Amino acid sequence: MSQQPPPRVPVPRDRNDDYTEAAAQSRRDFLLQQRPGSRTDHIGHYSLPPSSLRGNVELFAGVAQVPIGVAGPLRINGEHAQGDFYVPMATTEGTLVASYNRGMRLIAECGGVRTTVVEQHMQRSPVFFFSDARASRDFGHWIEDHLDGIRAAAEATTRFGKLIEVLQFAVGNLRYLRFNYHTGDAAGQNMAGKATLAACEWIRDTHPDHPRFMLSGNIDTDKKHSQLNTLLTRGRRVIAEATFTDEALRRIMKVSAQQLFEARQVSMTGAFMAGSASNGAHAANGLTALFIATGQDVANVSESHSSLVYTQLLPNGDYYWSVTLPSLIVATYGGGTGLATQRECLELLGCYGSGKADRFAEICAATVLAGETSLSSAVLAGDWVSSHDQYGRNRP
Amino acid sequence: MSQQPPPRVPVPRDRNDDYTEAAAQSRRDFLLQQRPGSRTDHIGHYSLPPSSLRGNVELFAGVAQVPIGVAGPLRINGEHAQGDFYVPMATTEGTLVASYNRGMRLIAECGGVRTTVVEQHMQRSPVFFFSDARASRDFGHWIEDHLDGIRAAAEATTRFGKLIEVLQFAVGNLRYLRFNYHTGDAAGQNMAGKATLAACEWIRDTHPDHPRFMLSGNIDTDKKHSQLNTLLTRGRRVIAEATFTDEALRRIMKVSAQQLFEARQVSMTGAFMAGSASNGAHAANGLTALFIATGQDVANVSESHSSLVYTQLLPNGDYYWSVTLPSLIVATYGGGTGLATQRECLELLGCYGSGKADRFAEICAATVLAGETSLSSAVLAGDWVSSHDQYGRNRP
Amino acid sequence: MSQQPPPRVPVPRDRNDDYTEAAAQSRRDFLLQQRPGSRTDHIGHYSLPPSSLRGNVELFAGVAQVPIGVAGPLRINGEHAQGDFYVPMATTEGTLVASYNRGMRLIAECGGVRTTVVEQHMQRSPVFFFSDARASRDFGHWIEDHLDGIRAAAEATTRFGKLIEVLQFAVGNLRYLRFNYHTGDAAGQNMAGKATLAACEWIRDTHPDHPRFMLSGNIDTDKKHSQLNTLLTRGRRVIAEATFTDEALRRIMKVSAQQLFEARQVSMTGAFMAGSASNGAHAANGLTALFIATGQDVANVSESHSSLVYTQLLPNGDYYWSVTLPSLIVATYGGGTGLATQRECLELLGCYGSGKADRFAEICAATVLAGETSLSSAVLAGDWVSSHDQYGRNRP
Amino acid sequence: MSQQPPPRVPVPRDRNDDYTEAAAQSRRDFLLQQRPGSRTDHIGHYSLPPSSLRGNVELFAGVAQVPIGVAGPLRINGEHAQGDFYVPMATTEGTLVASYNRGMRLIAECGGVRTTVVEQHMQRSPVFFFSDARASRDFGHWIEDHLDGIRAAAEATTRFGKLIEVLQFAVGNLRYLRFNYHTGDAAGQNMAGKATLAACEWIRDTHPDHPRFMLSGNIDTDKKHSQLNTLLTRGRRVIAEATFTDEALRRIMKVSAQQLFEARQVSMTGAFMAGSASNGAHAANGLTALFIATGQDVANVSESHSSLVYTQLLPNGDYYWSVTLPSLIVATYGGGTGLATQRECLELLGCYGSGKADRFAEICAATVLAGETSLSSAVLAGDWVSSHDQYGRNRP
Repeated sequence: MSQQPPPRVPVPRDRNDDYTEAAAQSRRDFLLQQRPGSRTDHIGHYSLPPSSLRGNVELFAGVAQVPIGVAGPLRINGEHAQGDFYVPMATTEGTLVASYNRGMRLIAECGGVRTTVVEQHMQRSPVFFFSDARASRDFGHWIEDHLDGIRAAAEATTRFGKLIEVLQFAVGNLRYLRFNYHTGDAAGQNMAGKATLAACEWIRDTHPDHPRFMLSGNIDTDKKHSQLNTLLTRGRRVIAEATFTDEALRRIMKVSAQQLFEARQVSMTGAFMAGSASNGAHAANGLTALFIATGQDVANVSESHSSLVYTQLLPNGDYYWSVTLPSLIVATYGGGTGLATQRECLELLGCYGSGKADRFAEICAATVLAGETSLSSAVLAGDWVSSHDQYGRNRP
Repeated sequence: MSQQPPPRVPVPRDRNDDYTEAAAQSRRDFLLQQRPGSRTDHIGHYSLPPSSLRGNVELFAGVAQVPIGVAGPLRINGEHAQGDFYVPMATTEGTLVASYNRGMRLIAECGGVRTTVVEQHMQRSPVFFFSDARASRDFGHWIEDHLDGIRAAAEATTRFGKLIEVLQFAVGNLRYLRFNYHTGDAAGQNMAGKATLAACEWIRDTHPDHPRFMLSGNIDTDKKHSQLNTLLTRGRRVIAEATFTDEALRRIMKVSAQQLFEARQVSMTGAFMAGSASNGAHAANGLTALFIATGQDVANVSESHSSLVYTQLLPNGDYYWSVTLPSLIVATYGGGTGLATQRECLELLGCYGSGKADRFAEICAATVLAGETSLSSAVLAGDWVSSHDQYGRNRP
Repeated sequence: MSQQPPPRVPVPRDRNDDYTEAAAQSRRDFLLQQRPGSRTDHIGHYSLPPSSLRGNVELFAGVAQVPIGVAGPLRINGEHAQGDFYVPMATTEGTLVASYNRGMRLIAECGGVRTTVVEQHMQRSPVFFFSDARASRDFGHWIEDHLDGIRAAAEATTRFGKLIEVLQFAVGNLRYLRFNYHTGDAAGQNMAGKATLAACEWIRDTHPDHPRFMLSGNIDTDKKHSQLNTLLTRGRRVIAEATFTDEALRRIMKVSAQQLFEARQVSMTGAFMAGSASNGAHAANGLTALFIATGQDVANVSESHSSLVYTQLLPNGDYYWSVTLPSLIVATYGGGTGLATQRECLELLGCYGSGKADRFAEICAATVLAGETSLSSAVLAGDWVSSHDQYGRNRP
Repeated sequence: MSQQPPPRVPVPRDRNDDYTEAAAQSRRDFLLQQRPGSRTDHIGHYSLPPSSLRGNVELFAGVAQVPIGVAGPLRINGEHAQGDFYVPMATTEGTLVASYNRGMRLIAECGGVRTTVVEQHMQRSPVFFFSDARASRDFGHWIEDHLDGIRAAAEATTRFGKLIEVLQFAVGNLRYLRFNYHTGDAAGQNMAGKATLAACEWIRDTHPDHPRFMLSGNIDTDKKHSQLNTLLTRGRRVIAEATFTDEALRRIMKVSAQQLFEARQVSMTGAFMAGSASNGAHAANGLTALFIATGQDVANVSESHSSLVYTQLLPNGDYYWSVTLPSLIVATYGGGTGLATQRECLELLGCYGSGKADRFAEICAATVLAGETSLSSAVLAGDWVSSHDQYGRNRP
């Protein structure tokens, strides 16, 4: 390997020229130079203006074109989402859109899916250091007694964020805090981070011990699944429910309610034994496709795919099927939601901008339930592999 | 809500016309009709040929344009990846590329990152039903005695897949199996599914009891994080390691090795208490951006973000930092890897096509380590929030 | 196997004669009859009066004699436990008492262990059933609005129990509640159960929907470890801390602080990867021995052994070592605490009766820390196996 | 606190006099001196000879008398346990024996419980240190190539232990190994520890790098629950199954099969959400009582209480109920099994000595199933609290 430092990715001398087509082109040229024989024709083909990307990406060089399929109609009886939706799903995985589409058909034939947002808050979890556990416990009481000051410091940094509560977890001479915020229609991680930093600085300056802190003690848990978030909610806790007739299940899914319920026992036991983030089938698939299409922070799939499926076979033979997403992190404002294609997709769902995050969360949960019905049935009916053969690309 | 069924997404009468621009246009027109006032101009702007999408998406209507930033040079001393790489990261999250870029600079100044693929296999985990646990146990012995037949049946369905072993997990009268395959340069979920179905059918037909089975007992665990996969590997187990001097950490990251190591104790404890999928910082961020750019199955971030960070402060004051990705699922062949922009990005990394999956896996792990160093330092140095203010979009 | 029903264990005709020596003798005779050649001489040898056992055991036939070793002095600087304690440990495992004793010596030489009870509450977690998630959410608000009535109903059943709060966890159309009580010096599971039943009946009768409930939805989690209890505390959350000099560690434990800290990184990583209930060494050993000796509900070891070890190597070379027990369930009143030998052991610790549970909890945590230091050092110093050879029974 | 060192627990000058009544008496005298007003009359009352305690306890001072109740008949259709058993349960918790007894009655009326030991191995999990992950991976291959030498070194230390396999888990530059042994009728932790130490020393001396190791990397996981052990078995994996008629459930348990199955869905979901060690009710209760009575290492309840309950409602209305204990650690030889009362209890079960561990494991699992049926029904039938009121001691 060369001992002289390799060249760095070019950045315009004037920062103001950074988000321009010229800067993007110079980076594509640089890449071609570094890897002779490669091409950048397609990543260089886009309609979004580079000037729109400040705050969304650095060292911009082009775009990934991710194909969007449209599944639907998805009939939702939500509080915020009501009616029939056509869901844009950005994916490169064959069968995925077709499978969700099939689930949506089942749902539509059985009266739609009922969706409910039951909880909402975003976190930042700093940790404070003390001489010993007793000082840490005293600090805990101090925190409870100074919530007003803490709230004022936190909320001074944000127009919309509201501090709901500060949970406490004691370990040794440490005190982990968990700040829960209402964040409106933004996902809110940055808002929560900024507000919590201000709160921590206020605490440090006000508390007589002036305790040291770290802004994250790793129990947020940001960008990773955790049992903590499954229990205590991160982002939104959203529930989708539907009741399916045995007749519709047999006709559309080729399985009976009885078969599904028997299989459910096996799937729940397997998920429990495996220590899985979900006792359902594949929430990650639908969420990822929706997230890419609509400009969500796609890395949040790590947290958002956690899911709790709960079902019952009803006395009349119908099948009650619910999926609970305990840490669904979505936004309809800020982040990538305003970019060119992303905004179009949100608008197709009637979900762009302020006041739409609950609606979008309901659509996410409804979509996940559609996917659960389709894959769970396919595994049983034996057409899982064959449908991949039909729709999927020939693979080695 | 209207009682008459809402219209379905249009599909050409002739299936052969499905992957055409006309079909895509008709779906965009349909969407505009359903949601008056919305637009599809940008999702309709793409350079990939619709005809290339068969097997990657159904009901194609357009594309998501996801901005790509380029981080690097990332100096890798791998077995498959050697040299300086410029990493295309598709994201809409401000700060992300800049942060990874900063980590890559630290790495480059400290001699590069060493990467190693230590294990590789993809799974499908069927479950067989028996009258009781004793019959299930006998079946377990039968499986061990018939591995040749099982392997033959499985491998008859695939050119490249090789069945390595069949693990067994007994619960009640059930027997969960876990088929582990080498899958070459494809991610291999479908290959594993198809091969396992053939194996299960062979087992059912050959075993005297003709036992019933389900193709998945939910311990695969496909599209969801699990402790099982962290332990037993799903996809590739890849390790990135680097040793950083205290001087470089102080100069570039504004933190000392000592501070990082002290903070590490807190982060590990927090992650353990939270029941987290990672005791590190944010593997999901870098992986997601790389996955979108290169046509990976992005939903696999749910599994792939699991990570084990292990560090030591060395006697000479240097800081050893490793990250182990136990379930990294990647492909350089099949799936979305051959699509227009995705293939370009793989080629920019020298990772397109057969024989490149290990190389790409090493780049993924190296990228993750870069991101770990940057965020972990930022949390400590206190510039986490300020860098988001600098790079990030103004948020509410 | 005989088709006629086998005889049942004899019970006196008059219930009042049940807790008598005659009844116990008749059961021992019965056992000898059922298994000719066996003996009951030793289990029939005891000094506790059978009449004292009503409420502690049914179908009483004799006793297990579990040997007690005494470790100590254990120097504790607690809030409730202060001074030097001699700890009765009931065990049949060689090396255990000697090992804890060694840790206590280290502690004594380094100034004692600081103990702190940071939280206390016992749970019962019923679940309520609703038609859908929305009704369940409304119910959640209703619960918040009716806490006074709920508290009154719960506390009417108990002299000492105080309802602190009712946590809520939504899944599908279910609502899991978690009632947290202060239970004074009793472990409080039964108190919590009885109070919660009364509260649930009040809720069912008062709420307009008269919702069905189950008294446990399995998130208590009673008699089993859970991440939930590690996070949210069950029983007492108690912390033991000590700071050890490198000199004392080297002299007594034959390891350096540096070695311990290096090894700690490995143990924490291993525990995290394994999905363990403790990232420490063996809290269960000391707790079990203490629990048996003092009449605790020993099955609670399943929950109480959960532990969070957190350490730091201090700038001056000393080693800070803490262990946090997040779900320590102990009593000094009620249950088995008043039985003959059990009460004696509690009295030897100055812990029998009302107002002593915090003191006993501190002794438990201090004991656990002693055991952590000893085993962790032994693993490193290489005398783990040899000490088992010295103290342990010759084993196959 | 006094600055002069407190007195140590007395030990006879001549080690040979340690396990004598005089030494025990001197310690009781010492305790009384330290805590004036306390008593040791009852702990000083025992029939076991102190001379029998070498290898079971150090600093012996007396015994805990733990009351034993006898539940049964427990009808078992096992491979090793066949017939009707009367189970000695040592406990101080009212209701426990009565509740298990009730479950045994249900089992007897429905034809008995079928028990099966499906797997058996005990572990020690050392960790080896390397310069980097690549050296660690090479070492992994070396281990596979030198299994014969490793086995020879390990088995040279034990008469009965057999090394089955060595599992490997890679993290950073570490390699965690998991040595699985057949250990016959001993629980085998010490045997496994001694054999693994010998194997590790052989490896260190034979491998060209002479790598450092620690005898435990904390993934054994000894004396603590872990997902790893639930998956991969520690000790014995034992399954108990029974099929109950709806009629018997209604008559004896006051619940229907349908009700139990409906409730099961809720319990499984709750356990999954809580991150619990068991998706059943209270395996720890029965196991602890059996372990104390029979001289098991009671601290192993931490691992052994892990359990997987799996049920189905059969087409004919019967209820299939199974419980799988994945890490049941028991012995009928060595440890505390030969002590006075402990041996009597084992003999009452026909389980003392060589060749009886499988039988005892089956009895454990059958007992656990009895307890599951009883408590799960009581929670539903609403007599849980009332039975505690009837049998339990009056509590505050």
